[in-house]
Amino acid sequence: MAGPVSPLAPASFPALPEIAGLRFSALAAGVRYKNRTDVMLAELAEDSVVAGVFTRSATRSAPVRDCEAKIGGTAAGRAAFLVNSGNSNAFTGAAGEISVSEICAAVARETGIEEARVFTSSTGVIGEPLPHDRITAKIADLNAALSPSGIEEAARAIMTTDTFPKGAAETVEIDGKPVKIAGIAKGSGMIAPDMATMLVYIFTDAKIARPALQELLREITDRTFNCITVDSDTSTSDTLLMGATGASGVSVDGHAGFAEALERVMLDLAHQVVRDGEGATKFVEIRVSGAASNDDARKVAMATANSPLVKTAIAGEDPNWGRVVMAVGKSGAEADRDRLSIRFGEILVAEKGWVSPAYSEEKAAAYMKGQELVIGIDLGLGAGEAVAWTCDLTHRYIDINADYRS
Amino acid sequence: MAGPVSPLAPASFPALPEIAGLRFSALAAGVRYKNRTDVMLAELAEDSVVAGVFTRSATRSAPVRDCEAKIGGTAAGRAAFLVNSGNSNAFTGAAGEISVSEICAAVARETGIEEARVFTSSTGVIGEPLPHDRITAKIADLNAALSPSGIEEAARAIMTTDTFPKGAAETVEIDGKPVKIAGIAKGSGMIAPDMATMLVYIFTDAKIARPALQELLREITDRTFNCITVDSDTSTSDTLLMGATGASGVSVDGHAGFAEALERVMLDLAHQVVRDGEGATKFVEIRVSGAASNDDARKVAMATANSPLVKTAIAGEDPNWGRVVMAVGKSGAEADRDRLSIRFGEILVAEKGWVSPAYSEEKAAAYMKGQELVIGIDLGLGAGEAVAWTCDLTHRYIDINADYRS
Repeated sequence: MAGPVSPLAPASFPALPEIAGLRFSALAAGVRYKNRTDVMLAELAEDSVVAGVFTRSATRSAPVRDCEAKIGGTAAGRAAFLVNSGNSNAFTGAAGEISVSEICAAVARETGIEEARVFTSSTGVIGEPLPHDRITAKIADLNAALSPSGIEEAARAIMTTDTFPKGAAETVEIDGKPVKIAGIAKGSGMIAPDMATMLVYIFTDAKIARPALQELLREITDRTFNCITVDSDTSTSDTLLMGATGASGVSVDGHAGFAEALERVMLDLAHQVVRDGEGATKFVEIRVSGAASNDDARKVAMATANSPLVKTAIAGEDPNWGRVVMAVGKSGAEADRDRLSIRFGEILVAEKGWVSPAYSEEKAAAYMKGQELVIGIDLGLGAGEAVAWTCDLTHRYIDINADYRS
Repeated sequence: MAGPVSPLAPASFPALPEIAGLRFSALAAGVRYKNRTDVMLAELAEDSVVAGVFTRSATRSAPVRDCEAKIGGTAAGRAAFLVNSGNSNAFTGAAGEISVSEICAAVARETGIEEARVFTSSTGVIGEPLPHDRITAKIADLNAALSPSGIEEAARAIMTTDTFPKGAAETVEIDGKPVKIAGIAKGSGMIAPDMATMLVYIFTDAKIARPALQELLREITDRTFNCITVDSDTSTSDTLLMGATGASGVSVDGHAGFAEALERVMLDLAHQVVRDGEGATKFVEIRVSGAASNDDARKVAMATANSPLVKTAIAGEDPNWGRVVMAVGKSGAEADRDRLSIRFGEILVAEKGWVSPAYSEEKAAAYMKGQELVIGIDLGLGAGEAVAWTCDLTHRYIDINADYRS
């Protein structure tokens, strides 16, 4: 299923800074894919703080359940993230749990890291037993290959239907010292995160207490990964893990500049996931204002972002604002036809319950030819706001997903 | 956008019985389509009872709001249903309300029916002013053309992206006398009814009190039209109107046989709407059992029926049960991986948190080649049950909806 790179992909993988206390490696273990890397190891220095958010799916995978149990446990010693692509080890019964514990045991054995500090993720096909022997056979090599500069290789190893590797970084100066944040992500389909998204790993050399980092992650996730959707389908494997090595010696607890930098990294990665949405040709921001509440605004934003009729109209470059009206109507949010206004970019399309007198279909059609679109919806009722990001729905999404056992 | 007839279409339009007290006509008014009928009139005899259920969309159309206001009003004299296709008169501001009242006034003038008993519907593009003059100019001709045998022509006149006209009928014997029910429907895309679906008109010569008919409609709608979905998008125009002329002289208040016959007619019409789902090549029943509650079962059924990943897998004839697991997980219903079982037709695919030992991928793949599929999901938790009906998601859905201004 190797297809063309998404037209919305960044020109190149960004230069991610090395972060003190972090080493990465990636190898080909042959879990499912041939001739490519499919397993990565990240090693975090002594006493690194680890926080994480995960899918709320009732059928979440064995590695997600294992991570959930470990988050909040011991914070002493080094830590490891071990991730494979090709097989999600989801809905694999007791065998799935055995796979997780075999992998964790092998990582502990080869690296000397305590098993309670080994976090694993798996992404790929659901319901097939994970051939964990192929992974455990590679742990020694992965450990030997660890390097401070290996993060891009790690980003490539976790790809599935992704067409480009995803990375983002920020450096903020705090108390006159640089604090670095770098993250990688994968995700392209089954994207409607309900907690975190697909697989995301973020690292920093900041010093921060675990509860503070966990709280920060949860809060920012709600404004970033939880505001994107490719296809309204929530994965069984969504995982966001963050490790803070503290190696910068700079404490960032309660520091707004750090939180803002982290949010920029998370938003950048979330946008990259949408930009690699299966079959995507347009990146679309849905900006809702004037709702009776933020909750209502979010309902409208997600109903619009998930509407197949809105998304196919965007694919067809049709300024079909009637379908936006439909999405507002079905969202469950309070709405009043006569107070609703809709904008495509700067173009006022509809207001006061009808098409705007100044509306030019020609101008709107020209706007829709752009690759980056903003649909603005003002409900005219209150101060509630929300933003969601999505992509269009094209033939390629069907090609990718109707193909026998993607 | 004339495409091939759905492969799931019935062989022919059913023979619908004439119902005493009912006359129909259809004509080409040129609202939007060329060379086809696009307006229909139904005339109901003196003292016919009219009941209806409508979309709950917050942006519902002007004719829907007008019908809502009239249902429950005067029950004396004849009644009329006037329906046009090509333009939905939704989100057309004050002009939309003027169009409705102009049409109602013209029907009242030409037919002598009280305006409060004239119910109108419009279906088609959203947000464009309805050229009601084209319709009002045809009312005299429609009135002159009324005929007891015109129901099939009426069914054809209300089609939009439909590829076949939809009708269903039942005759039940009550107190030794035949009571007839006949209905017509349209609908193909923007189908995820939240009350009724698209446009449905059902007629009977039964005698029944209005509150009883209204209650019956509401109840049965929940088990029929509210259990279908084509694309998860809820229309601004969904309307189900039913007229009971009483001409049979048979009172059916509280009669189970009548309710069952009405449910068969409504279910048949609902299934026909799914069978004409935009781009559909498979008719799929999602049968959920063992849920903690009926509500939970419904959540699972609809999450599965609306999942683009499940629907594209079905289009690709891929027994990708992992995506069914995903849909269960995201539905919000209580679920336990280890109690969940999944069947494709009679084939037990997964049980106890994993693929069934007896599962044969080959047999499941052969089953998926069928045109009528049943996906069974048992949650193993309680007695909650639900059924939903949907179709697959194919390239043709994108063709139809990415086309500039469908």
